Parts: sequence; structure tokens; C-alpha cells
Amino acid sequence: MEFKISKELIQQLEQLIQTKNDQQLEVLLNDMHHADFAEILEEIDIDEATYIFKVLDSEKTAEILLELEDDLRENILKRLSAKEIAEELDELDTNDAADIIGELSKEKKAEVISELQDVEHAKDIVDLLRYPEDTAGGIMHKELVKVNENWNVLTCVKEMRIQAENISRVHSIYVVDDEDRLKGRLSLKDLLTTSTRTAISDVYISKLNSVTVDTEDVEVARIMQKYDLEAIPVVDELGRLVGRITIDDIIDVIKDEADKDYQLAAGITNDIETNDSVYELTKARLPWLLIGMVIEIIASFVLKGNEAVFEKYSTLIIFVPLLSATAGNIGVQASAIVVQGLANGTLKTYSRDYFSKELTVSMISGFIISMFLLVYHSVMYQQYMVGFAISISIVVVILFAATLGTLVPLFLHKNKIDPAIATGPFITTTNDVFGIMIYFAVAKLILGF
Amino acid sequence: MEFKISKELIQQLEQLIQTKNDQQLEVLLNDMHHADFAEILEEIDIDEATYIFKVLDSEKTAEILLELEDDLRENILKRLSAKEIAEELDELDTNDAADIIGELSKEKKAEVISELQDVEHAKDIVDLLRYPEDTAGGIMHKELVKVNENWNVLTCVKEMRIQAENISRVHSIYVVDDEDRLKGRLSLKDLLTTSTRTAISDVYISKLNSVTVDTEDVEVARIMQKYDLEAIPVVDELGRLVGRITIDDIIDVIKDEADKDYQLAAGITNDIETNDSVYELTKARLPWLLIGMVIEIIASFVLKGNEAVFEKYSTLIIFVPLLSATAGNIGVQASAIVVQGLANGTLKTYSRDYFSKELTVSMISGFIISMFLLVYHSVMYQQYMVGFAISISIVVVILFAATLGTLVPLFLHKNKIDPAIATGPFITTTNDVFGIMIYFAVAKLILGF
Repeated sequence: MEFKISKELIQQLEQLIQTKNDQQLEVLLNDMHHADFAEILEEIDIDEATYIFKVLDSEKTAEILLELEDDLRENILKRLSAKEIAEELDELDTNDAADIIGELSKEKKAEVISELQDVEHAKDIVDLLRYPEDTAGGIMHKELVKVNENWNVLTCVKEMRIQAENISRVHSIYVVDDEDRLKGRLSLKDLLTTSTRTAISDVYISKLNSVTVDTEDVEVARIMQKYDLEAIPVVDELGRLVGRITIDDIIDVIKDEADKDYQLAAGITNDIETNDSVYELTKARLPWLLIGMVIEIIASFVLKGNEAVFEKYSTLIIFVPLLSATAGNIGVQASAIVVQGLANGTLKTYSRDYFSKELTVSMISGFIISMFLLVYHSVMYQQYMVGFAISISIVVVILFAATLGTLVPLFLHKNKIDPAIATGPFITTTNDVFGIMIYFAVAKLILGF
Repeated sequence: MEFKISKELIQQLEQLIQTKNDQQLEVLLNDMHHADFAEILEEIDIDEATYIFKVLDSEKTAEILLELEDDLRENILKRLSAKEIAEELDELDTNDAADIIGELSKEKKAEVISELQDVEHAKDIVDLLRYPEDTAGGIMHKELVKVNENWNVLTCVKEMRIQAENISRVHSIYVVDDEDRLKGRLSLKDLLTTSTRTAISDVYISKLNSVTVDTEDVEVARIMQKYDLEAIPVVDELGRLVGRITIDDIIDVIKDEADKDYQLAAGITNDIETNDSVYELTKARLPWLLIGMVIEIIASFVLKGNEAVFEKYSTLIIFVPLLSATAGNIGVQASAIVVQGLANGTLKTYSRDYFSKELTVSMISGFIISMFLLVYHSVMYQQYMVGFAISISIVVVILFAATLGTLVPLFLHKNKIDPAIATGPFITTTNDVFGIMIYFAVAKLILGF
């Protein structure tokens, strides 16, 4: 059932383009899903790929443009004229068109907008461009079916048929008053099962979730997931229905959010991908490396200050990497669990129960690890007191790392900072510094300096 | 618009339960969304919460049961009789009911199934229990609207109205032949705009994505996202339509997948949450800590073997944490980008272009970091050759870590192992060991041992 890209298909496409066999190209295009066709375009020459958009019917190619990887699309758009781009955009949903326009340079943006043929559509697109990307306004589209509360079911079905022409998925029919203010909704199923003369005002459901244009996209995602919604209407400050967000728009938000947490944990600031430029990749990564470096320079001071200790007990120093790694691992585990708990709502704020559970887990892990080390060190180096000192300090360091790992993300969250930062290089390197300090302090205490 | 949980509401609910005011409870329940009601139940006593399910109409409470956090639901289910549970399940969609049954003990499972009233529904649920959780069969539900290819539009609409009674979202109408084999689909919109006497076989669309019961859930998610589907039919080995997966089922798969990557990166094996037990939390975390410990013991050997070197050049040892952290950070960054690239398809296999880009980024970062260190070390310690040795080795270590970070996830992916493991403790600690080896080897080379 599933499409598989093949060398033959790529060659066939290339040949058709080279021989400018537009008719056969159109046939090939019709046979394929636009997402599959986009995949093949990734494999061929950029000028050949551009040819498809220059020559074939925009009604067919617009969706393909949408499915391309960002950098290929960018390159193709550069090769198309403003008029050619406008033709593609005329075929797309308002929010998809607005997204593509958002990728263009300032001058080309204005040119493309002026070339749009469908005036209503163009107005909607320009309207969408006003909203920040990470708000309900930025992810909504203008396509929706709305009916007036004063109509009856018959008028409603007629109107709906007209409006639904341009909409791939109806989901809900929204009910508005004469001022376009959102009053409620009707389901398609209700329409199918109600007599045609019934007044809309008698059948619509007035209980309805909605968001305003400036609601944050992650909040929209949260609401839609909590209430299991497939679409949510968006209203402006006056309560007027201005757009709709569907679940497929939200999947991207959910994925981006998860990706962002993952990237922050890995010490990457911006949303980057494998096909970004060296400059962008470096810009997203270098700051965390430098922060890590600066913090670890502090660690070098701590070690320098303890030189006399490890000159006397040389095995202390050789376990520093083990200590750092263990502290780092425990700390990241602790904060990752808190970050996910905050994200999915199982943890809302500091909880004494949870904190003592975390300390119990760390205590058990610390005890097991320190027992291993005590035995290992005693067998290998026969310095029992040093082994004892190492074991005790590793327990203390583990408890400290677990505490930091639990409390820092909660503290950040309380202060409206993304807690995911607490799973990244900043916290692991800070853990290193404190860990080494504690290690030598405990060791000195036990070995008597 | 949005629901806010309040102390008053909790107290009101507690009071109604304590006074057994079932009528008012029902009113309160009707006024609220089940997801909101579930949130309040999290805040009250477990026996009080159980009362709701024992006394109130299952038609109302079943959805609430579904929305509860896993551990609260588990506790409530323990307090309910098999008959009481069966009453709730009779009200739920087949896959939701099957999920809840899956959480029960073996004996209770059988008891509950025997108590189910709706025989058809019970058969469907039992059928779903056969499939592994992470397959299309495990996440599909039985609720769908299907029509026979030999009907006409009028019969179809009539049948649909009957079938749609039990289905919250219709999405697509599936067309089957007399043997129940999937032939194609009809959209609600098509039905609304086609004359009633038209034969279904004339209007249905035969091009249609479907999956088989044993397709992996992540693969279903990929297909649905790629083709932007809101529902996909599931067929058995003989091509017979057996169920349907909707986009809200898939959101959970997408989130779980992202969570899993994040947890693997943080060194957590199982899918755990803040409210899991100490035992479960320890079981998910300790193995990685022990693996890290064992690998870092190797690091201690490497340091022990180089004791003579850092006794002569003492500043070498104090930069070991800096070196480890930088190698670790670079390695995790590199592998996180690859893991995400593999997940979202921008990277499919080893790419020479991408690898040389990664090396360029690391080279630039390494150069900047080593320059800082060279200057810093020269100013602080005035041992120019040692500073030079540290700077050179850090560049070599960074390049090595970037190489390992890029190639290991690609290698794992090629061998069908989850590449996300390569962002966790295993790779960071391995990086430590190699990093320290390279560090001292390069230093020895430059300082002439």
C-alpha cells in the first residue's frame, strides 16, 4: 500500500522534464500523492524541480510546494517570479499561504501579495500575517463554515454546501450572530438528523471552547488535548469569529515543543535541523559550549586548590571523572522527570512527597554505587580509609545532584523560565563544580586534613 | 472561558458526597466537562472519588474514569466491583474500554468481561485485547461507519444515521464489499452533495491509505502525518476492514515517542512519571548509573596510567573536568541533531555532506574554545607549552566526540537499534574515557614523554 521511492521513478521524472513532456508529467503527478511527489523532488536537480512549478497547473503543484523540506522550498521560491508564486498561493489554504509568504524576503513579499488573484483570499492571508507565529492567530486558518443563528436548517445546509466547497474538513459548523460574534456550534451529524425547518437558534450548542487570537500556541495545544477537540474556533478581542485551528496544526506545535525540550537538554538553543547551515548550527551550539567551558574553569580552580590532597592520596583524583559523571547522570535524570511532569501536568509545583521520593531513589542508587566502589577500591588499592572517603562523598554528591536536579527546574518554572534548560549543559557543568567541591570537602573531613 | 479548579468547588463536591446528595452531584456533573471533573477528583479523598463511580450514572462517569491519572484510576478500579467496572466500560469506545481492561489483574479482567452487557461491544473489546499495544491493532477502535458498495446514496445515508449514533466523529465513511473487504471511502461532504439515487460504487474513492493490524504504531503515526490524515482504516491479513485509528490516538503515540527519546537522552529506560513508585523509578534509572560507573572506572585506569605525566605538569589534571564536559556537550549536541534528523526524515542514512558539515562546526567551536584556553592558561600559569598542549588536545577531543556523536546514532539506526540511546549516559561516559586517553596522548606527544 505504501509508496516507495525508486530510482526508476526518479529517472522517469527527470527524463520527462528534460524532454519537456508536460502532458506525461501531468499524468504522473495525478497518479501520485503530493507528499510522495515532494519526496521525489528532493532527489532531483533544483532547476528540474523548479520546472514542475513553472509549467504545471498550480492547482496540482501548490500542495507539493507545501510538503517540501524548508531549504528546497526556499531555493525553488528564489527561482520563481512573484506572479508564479502568487499562482501557487491562490490554491492554498490561508494559513499555509501565509506561512510561505512569511519565508519570503520583504520586497518579494509585497510583490507576491499584489499578484494574488483572489481578493478575498488575499485579504485573509494579509490578515493572518499580522499575528505572531506562536499565537493562535499565527497558526489559525480562515477556512471554516459558519452560519447565522437566525437561519433555519435548510438555509444552513445550502449555505454550508457553498462554503464547504473550499474546505477539506468541516468538523464543526460555527454559529454567529449578525455582528459575527461566536455564539455556538452545530455538528454535521446534528444537521443530518434534524428537520429542515428547525431554526438554528433552537438546535445549536452554546457550550463551546474557543481561544482568542493572542492565546499562546502551546496553550491552544493543551486545551485541545485536554478536551479532546479536533478543531477550535478563534475569536478576536470583541468575540468575533476570525478563524479556526484544527488538530493537524496542533500536531506540529506538540512536536516542536517536544523537540525544543530535547534540544535544550542537548545544549542546542535554536530550532535547528541537519540541513541548516554551518553558521546556524554553530550559533545554536557554541554558546552552551562556552558557558560549559567557563563553569569548568571554576572546576579547575577547585582542583588546583586541592592539589595537596590528591598529591597525598592519589586515587582521589582518578575518581573525579566517575564522580562527575555520576552526579551529572543523576542530576539530568532528576530534572528530566520533573520537566516532563511539569509538561504533562502530573507535577504542578514543588511537592514535598515527590521530593522525598526523589531523595529516596537517589539514596538507594547512591548506596548501591558506593558499596561497589568501596569494595572495588579496597581490592584494587588497599587504602581502606580513602575508599571509605570516596564512597561517602559519592553518596553526598548524588544527594546534592538530585536536589539540584529536582529544585532548579521547579524554580525556573515558577519564575516563568523554561525548565528544560535545567536538563542541559548549564546544570551538568554546575553539578560538576559543586560535586568536586563536596567530594574533596568530605574526603578531607574523613581523612583529616 | 477556561475552567479553573477552585477550593470552593472541591469543598462543594466533598460536601455533596459526604451528605450523599446524589441529585445535586448529578447536576454538578452535568455542568462540567469530564476532563475538568477528573481534575477535581485528583484533589479529593480516594473513597470519596470512588463514590462518584459507584453511585452516579455510568453514562456520565465513564468518560471521567478515562481522564484520570493512571494511579488514581488504578486505585479506584481496585475499589469497584467487576459489575461496576463493566457498567462503566459499556459506555466507552471499544479501544478505551480495552485499555482499561488491560490495566486490570488477570482474574478481574475475566470477571469484568463476563459482566459486560452489550454483547457486540464485548466481542469487539475482547477482539482488541488480542493485539499488542504498540501495533495498529492495539490502538485502533472498532467504532466506524461503513457502507456496502452495492447500496445507493439514500440507503447509505439511512444506514449512516444508525451507525453514526454511537460514533462521536465520523471523518470518513468506508466502503466494503460483501466479504467486508475494504474497497474505498466516501466523504460526508460527497454524500451531502450527491443525488440520493446514485450508486455508491459510482461515487466512492478507491484510492485510500490503510494499514494492517500488525503495522507498528509509530509507522501509523508517520503515514498519517505524511499524508495529513485524520483517520486511517485498519484491515486484517485478508484485507477485511476491522477498525479505524483517528488522529487523537496518534497524538499520544507522537508524544510518547518524543518523551521516550527525551528520557533515553536523560538516562531513563522505562516510561516513568513523577507519580511512579520508588521501585519503578529506581529500576528505570539505576542501570544507566551503573553502566556509567563501570565505564568511568576505565577512565580511572587511564588517569592512573598517566600519573607520572600530571605529577610533572600539574595543570593538565585540573583541566580534565573541562575536557570531559566539552567532549560530552559536543557529543550530545551532535547525536541529538542526528537523532532528530532521523526521526523527522531530514536525514535517512550516513551522508558525507552532513558529516563534513558537522566536522566543520566542531572545528570552528573547537578552535574558538582552544584559543580561549590558550590565552587563559598562559596568563594564569605561564606554562606556554602546557597551554599549547591542552589547546591542541581539546580540538582533537572535540573532533573525536563529534565524530562519535554523529556516527554512533547512524550506526544504531542502521542496525535497527533506537538511535536515541546514543544521546544518553552510555555515550557521554564513553566519550569521557576516549577523551581522557586522547588528551594525555596528545599532551605527551607535544611535551615529549
